[in-house]
Amino acid sequence: MKFVTGESKKPATYQDIAEGGLNNRPVSLRGAVHALRDMGGVTFLTLRLARGAVQCVCPPGALPQGLREECCVELSGTVRGEPRAPGGFEIAVESVAVLSRPAAPMPVSLGKRRLDLHLDTELPLRPVVLRHPRERAVFKIQEGLVRAFRDYLTGEGFTEIHTPKIVHAGAEGGSNIFKLDYFGKKACLTQSPQLYKQTMAGVFHRVFEVGPVFRAEKHATPRHLNEYTGLDFEMGYIDSFYDIIEMEAGYLRHAMALLAREYRLELDLLGVELPAMDQIPCLRFDAAKRLAAEKYGCQIRDPYDLEPEEEARIGQYVKEELDSDFVFVTHYPSKKRPFYAMDDPDDARYTLSFDLLFRGLEVTTGGQRIHSWAAQTAKMEARGMDPAEFESYLMIHRHGMPPHGGLGIGLERLTMQLCGLDNIRYASLFPRDRTRMVP
Amino acid sequence: MKFVTGESKKPATYQDIAEGGLNNRPVSLRGAVHALRDMGGVTFLTLRLARGAVQCVCPPGALPQGLREECCVELSGTVRGEPRAPGGFEIAVESVAVLSRPAAPMPVSLGKRRLDLHLDTELPLRPVVLRHPRERAVFKIQEGLVRAFRDYLTGEGFTEIHTPKIVHAGAEGGSNIFKLDYFGKKACLTQSPQLYKQTMAGVFHRVFEVGPVFRAEKHATPRHLNEYTGLDFEMGYIDSFYDIIEMEAGYLRHAMALLAREYRLELDLLGVELPAMDQIPCLRFDAAKRLAAEKYGCQIRDPYDLEPEEEARIGQYVKEELDSDFVFVTHYPSKKRPFYAMDDPDDARYTLSFDLLFRGLEVTTGGQRIHSWAAQTAKMEARGMDPAEFESYLMIHRHGMPPHGGLGIGLERLTMQLCGLDNIRYASLFPRDRTRMVP
Repeated sequence: MKFVTGESKKPATYQDIAEGGLNNRPVSLRGAVHALRDMGGVTFLTLRLARGAVQCVCPPGALPQGLREECCVELSGTVRGEPRAPGGFEIAVESVAVLSRPAAPMPVSLGKRRLDLHLDTELPLRPVVLRHPRERAVFKIQEGLVRAFRDYLTGEGFTEIHTPKIVHAGAEGGSNIFKLDYFGKKACLTQSPQLYKQTMAGVFHRVFEVGPVFRAEKHATPRHLNEYTGLDFEMGYIDSFYDIIEMEAGYLRHAMALLAREYRLELDLLGVELPAMDQIPCLRFDAAKRLAAEKYGCQIRDPYDLEPEEEARIGQYVKEELDSDFVFVTHYPSKKRPFYAMDDPDDARYTLSFDLLFRGLEVTTGGQRIHSWAAQTAKMEARGMDPAEFESYLMIHRHGMPPHGGLGIGLERLTMQLCGLDNIRYASLFPRDRTRMVP
Repeated sequence: MKFVTGESKKPATYQDIAEGGLNNRPVSLRGAVHALRDMGGVTFLTLRLARGAVQCVCPPGALPQGLREECCVELSGTVRGEPRAPGGFEIAVESVAVLSRPAAPMPVSLGKRRLDLHLDTELPLRPVVLRHPRERAVFKIQEGLVRAFRDYLTGEGFTEIHTPKIVHAGAEGGSNIFKLDYFGKKACLTQSPQLYKQTMAGVFHRVFEVGPVFRAEKHATPRHLNEYTGLDFEMGYIDSFYDIIEMEAGYLRHAMALLAREYRLELDLLGVELPAMDQIPCLRFDAAKRLAAEKYGCQIRDPYDLEPEEEARIGQYVKEELDSDFVFVTHYPSKKRPFYAMDDPDDARYTLSFDLLFRGLEVTTGGQRIHSWAAQTAKMEARGMDPAEFESYLMIHRHGMPPHGGLGIGLERLTMQLCGLDNIRYASLFPRDRTRMVP
């Protein structure tokens, strides 16, 4: 009988080589042939690894018959320092074994430094275009943002949860919901884990979730997706909604530090400059709105929300005046915030809520929630909602909830702004918009 | 103007107190009043924290008027050793401030050591019943299983990905799919991230995803959910499918070690015994099937798959004979495995695939995938599938894929078996089954 023990067989990585520990040592690497250049006898083979790519020098006769780009190979040789090679080293190849061969050449050459494809050309080819170093770098950085979110919050005593994405139709309302048939009943896809994460704040005090969020919004913009990844947290026993803001600022600092430490390869490839995170200014909604109007001449069309142009101008202002890439805009009008938002006791026209703008774009919405049953049912009734439809949600208020609040971060928006992408579709592996559900 | 810096305000925890560092020191704690017992003057207040609960001794007059269970409070006092108190310490209370009050008493008393509610009574009350220490302990342990999955795989060079849950109808086939209307087109909810994670193995070599999976299966069993959390990974450049098995065994060892180290409180509360993980036996499907028939008299009704009774018997066998809680069953018949499974070159009736049984229940399905375009299109055609419908998937094979494979673990099943629960619904916060989509 065969037994397994969980032994780890870690392949050599780009980092192992780049850190210099393997210099003049034999190495065996597996990867795809990213590019081939015949220099008259000697061939330069660029081997694409899980991260990074390495220049491999193959003497005449070392290459198997018919080797071409996107063949997967195992290559043996010796690492040697070479100042002219990218990264400062190369592999002197002794042998190359082919593990698999493509059936057809790539539709675009991955050997180019930048692909610069039109979005409509790129997206259908995504499954293979993502192999390009610059394309995949975006998603490696995205991984870092998520990893930092979990690591930071776990360290702060949060518990990770997994809540249902198929929910009872009507629970959240609004026209932007995808509907489905659930064994003959009407159901919908969740627009946020809001009600569940509040519930779980009553259980674990501090909870977070990373998961898909669905919005059936019909308008096509460079900053909306119909399915995106939400980074959500909710925390109980807060003193005020500034506790939530501080927690997000703490996460962002942690994230930027992690990226600086472990994702330098991808940051440099994309030319990403990490934002300074020493302190983030907070501006009240009404002051921010006035500022955009008075300083930049933005016309006030919607007094209860910020329009994209206003967000951009407020971002510009804090960058120019305070050298900050971020700004928390606080105290949004009650009229445009959801039924669970807590009104400001000092002025009920406003809520104890905030958005975070990053380089002029909203990337987070959060705030303090109503925890009293009487206050929550009263606010629902004032809005013409029927509390009876929310029975299993109001159960938590009825039987006692701590003062609590939380936020939701759009992962793709955060990625987009950090990497300086001009369309959010570049920050989603396989974006979903009005016209796209393939690939 | 106000500025925030990301300052962390960590509340004192059960662990801080239990580790003894706060003994004879003043402490301020926030939590819910879990139980109140008047001992004639002195009142014992059990304060429920984010983890654990602590006995607090309140002198006459220290309690606010009308304090009752599920009030949220801030309590100040001194920690002192007390051998008769649970955990070996208690708080001598000086003051109690009420942060919030419930509108109505709990429908069940959380003060009982075990609730032992019938499933049909418990599930509608889940939003508040989850506050019970034994109920929430299951989900804290579940958190540990997910945390270990990510930490282990990140350490092994995997990249975390997020793939769409709304997919083109027909991409996966089968009758067990939830269908929805996507802006006038037919779409469905993904049954697994299979095609996307294979795609991403061509990009990052090793990838994983933690996310919801949807199955519209109509049968109600104690081990099926219609929405569950999949722990998926896919790895390229493998030598054989045993690389995948070893990776899973490595993860499980890592998970059990993490639980033993950081989740002792919850393990003890539930009486969970962690399985030994030194080595896991592997049995071929046909040998396992024969064994269940010959040793335990299981009738062979389906020669191509294992029935629940057979899985249970195989689990019993490896426990009794090899003292193992786990067994990998390998080489499942090609007939019952999906189109992307690689057939065994030595006998094409079988595949290079496996299931992992944990205490007699399947918790994982995995295997090596076809990487050659010619072999994949041939297998599709032999099954009567139209390769043209899979164009954006077959693109990855056409343009070259490394030998690769992966697996999917059902998080709720793993949790259920580890915690000894008799119904998978107890391992999902808000389970979805044929009749339940609320709460």
